[in-house]
Amino acid sequence: MTAIDGARLLDDLATLARFGACGPGVDRVALSEADIAARRWLAERMREAGLEATMDRVGNVVGRDPRAALAILIGSHSDTVPRGGRLDGALGVIYALEIARSLREHEAGGPASPIGIDVVSFQDEEGTYLPFLGSRTFCGTLDEAEIASARSADGHPLADALRPLAEEPAPHRLDPARHLAFVEAHIEQGPRLEAARKRIGVVTGIVGIRRFRIVATGAANHAGTTPMALRRDAGAALIRIAADLLDRFPALAGDETVWNIGAIAFRPGAANVVPGVAELSLEMRDLDPAVLDRLEQAATERVAAESAAESGAGVSATIARTTTVAPTAMAPDLIEAMTAAAQSLGETPVMLPSGAGHDAMELGRVLPAGMLFVPSIGGISHDVAEATSDADIVRGCEVLAEAVDGLRRRLATAGR
Amino acid sequence: MTAIDGARLLDDLATLARFGACGPGVDRVALSEADIAARRWLAERMREAGLEATMDRVGNVVGRDPRAALAILIGSHSDTVPRGGRLDGALGVIYALEIARSLREHEAGGPASPIGIDVVSFQDEEGTYLPFLGSRTFCGTLDEAEIASARSADGHPLADALRPLAEEPAPHRLDPARHLAFVEAHIEQGPRLEAARKRIGVVTGIVGIRRFRIVATGAANHAGTTPMALRRDAGAALIRIAADLLDRFPALAGDETVWNIGAIAFRPGAANVVPGVAELSLEMRDLDPAVLDRLEQAATERVAAESAAESGAGVSATIARTTTVAPTAMAPDLIEAMTAAAQSLGETPVMLPSGAGHDAMELGRVLPAGMLFVPSIGGISHDVAEATSDADIVRGCEVLAEAVDGLRRRLATAGR
Repeated sequence: MTAIDGARLLDDLATLARFGACGPGVDRVALSEADIAARRWLAERMREAGLEATMDRVGNVVGRDPRAALAILIGSHSDTVPRGGRLDGALGVIYALEIARSLREHEAGGPASPIGIDVVSFQDEEGTYLPFLGSRTFCGTLDEAEIASARSADGHPLADALRPLAEEPAPHRLDPARHLAFVEAHIEQGPRLEAARKRIGVVTGIVGIRRFRIVATGAANHAGTTPMALRRDAGAALIRIAADLLDRFPALAGDETVWNIGAIAFRPGAANVVPGVAELSLEMRDLDPAVLDRLEQAATERVAAESAAESGAGVSATIARTTTVAPTAMAPDLIEAMTAAAQSLGETPVMLPSGAGHDAMELGRVLPAGMLFVPSIGGISHDVAEATSDADIVRGCEVLAEAVDGLRRRLATAGR
Repeated sequence: MTAIDGARLLDDLATLARFGACGPGVDRVALSEADIAARRWLAERMREAGLEATMDRVGNVVGRDPRAALAILIGSHSDTVPRGGRLDGALGVIYALEIARSLREHEAGGPASPIGIDVVSFQDEEGTYLPFLGSRTFCGTLDEAEIASARSADGHPLADALRPLAEEPAPHRLDPARHLAFVEAHIEQGPRLEAARKRIGVVTGIVGIRRFRIVATGAANHAGTTPMALRRDAGAALIRIAADLLDRFPALAGDETVWNIGAIAFRPGAANVVPGVAELSLEMRDLDPAVLDRLEQAATERVAAESAAESGAGVSATIARTTTVAPTAMAPDLIEAMTAAAQSLGETPVMLPSGAGHDAMELGRVLPAGMLFVPSIGGISHDVAEATSDADIVRGCEVLAEAVDGLRRRLATAGR
């Protein structure tokens, strides 16, 4: 097995965290000066590890193993959300660097397998300008029109932000003849490993997401002078719809399904005015499209019932899907390799879906992909307080290195 | 009976509507140039009608009947909300002017009763700076500290707005030895007269108002990575509280009770974040404090149940009363005089509470008070589209003049 160097791994994570340091966390949004500086540093570290590394003109950094014609691609992203944590993305990139580096040291006499390790840090996974800009560019699933129209929340065009990289090489591309699989490690960003007191999560798939806007329309009126029987109260109608959905969903959902009513507003929104319009956002996530179909149907039926004439409340309601992300299954071979690696090191992995999107979602649509999670203390992420114990960080990398070893052996055998 | 001049009444309403004209409506907020100009015009019209009229240093205009030692005070307010209607307040002021004027013409040979008519237009009923500034000043229920601290929604101090009136006379005061009753006519600002196809409403009282803020506190979390069982969802808890209150209130309420959830918000308020804090505003109105007590108790109990340990959702909730307005009963003698006047003119009055506050609420705490409503087309008010048919406007003034005649006779008899 490839013995990784835990101290070196932690040291690299600490050095990377200095780019955009922000209290105990990091503010290193995509294409900021700190982000570009961190990527240049990453490329240099990859070269020191014997990889051919360049940053391309979208900011993706790929380190290519020059000894191999076939490779497993390992990595994640090194951009962060504003005032984010030091591990989200960075962990998976430094794991990849450390595994490639250890392997090269371990195989100083020459590769033990025809399958090398390529390392990647994708650009703007967090969507400061365009979510998954880097992994979608790498996979060839992003068109120029999307890049041309993308802007940050404060209106800064992506095209302007990319200008300083105009002289860099053309974008790295996935090479189907070379890349056999994609492996990404990440902090869990949730409470499940900690609650289960386990150190390794093996991701079964990345959930599909559907978001909806439900809007009820009645008539705004004076809340003192309009008798209850003469009101067309959009707010009351929406509250009843929401309460019914919250009551109904558990029986329709799977064990891992999650749903959320994250935002709600009444208009005009004054204490003494009957709401004329009321709206909410409803989100649902699951690995199984059939489960999402069931929840969506229940929501659609409930909303339609509100508008039916017999309800008599004079409020109409609509539901519109605003976001659709298809689920991405992780490759069974990669799930198996990670599970076996964890067990061989004495860990009992938790099998769980990823409830959040990751670069592995984009890669997993075109390549066998697998993900490994380490615990998030308190389930916290996207915050400077984001943390994982050093011991868990090192353990995660050991398991990933072991899994990659196993994969290389298996793929080399399969390729013969 | 005192025959009013309908054409003159409508003409005066049209002239008053030119001050601050705004499309078909009026923008004449308290202490604006248009408001002060309108009040100077009103004082002049009162003088033409034989009254001793002045505007005082808060902008109240009072026209005093110089022939009488005792008087019924009639009027309303001539300020409006921004982009408001031409009748809200103005109707009651012009009714008062027309009744005093017609009476003087009718009694050219000398007063038929020792009880005269005083006319008033109160300042800032709408609360641009301080709700009921004028009627509270007149009643002596406002202290200097409230005036000193009052500001408009955009931060302009009331004290600055009053400066142009600093040279005007000291505030008019209610004179308990002179003023026997207060009578106010107003547009209904609701749909009840129109729905009942009646032209006259006699107000039984002005409802009490209680407003509450209900706040649920849980923990914000990633809506994709936090399993349902590990959430502390403040939004879901608040929706269930709101739905339960909407279900429960009808059985606890009286026939005329109204309640409203007019505003609601979740924080941080994103589709993909479990709400950590959720709050709503709840308002209830009724003439009977015991009814308000029942609804308040139900809300308090439901909120307390949410925080009880056995609920297990990890969300706590609080309820706080933010506004309290005590109900004001209208005087039985005035209700009776208005009802009799309407019937004598062939109208079938609708007896109804006023769901909105009026100057008669302030006056009614210190003096017998009565209110008469005329229909609001479509129930609309506080909007440039606010309207009442000319025929209904004239009819309302005829009924009010007849009611005042009756009151003068009765009070003169009682005073003997």
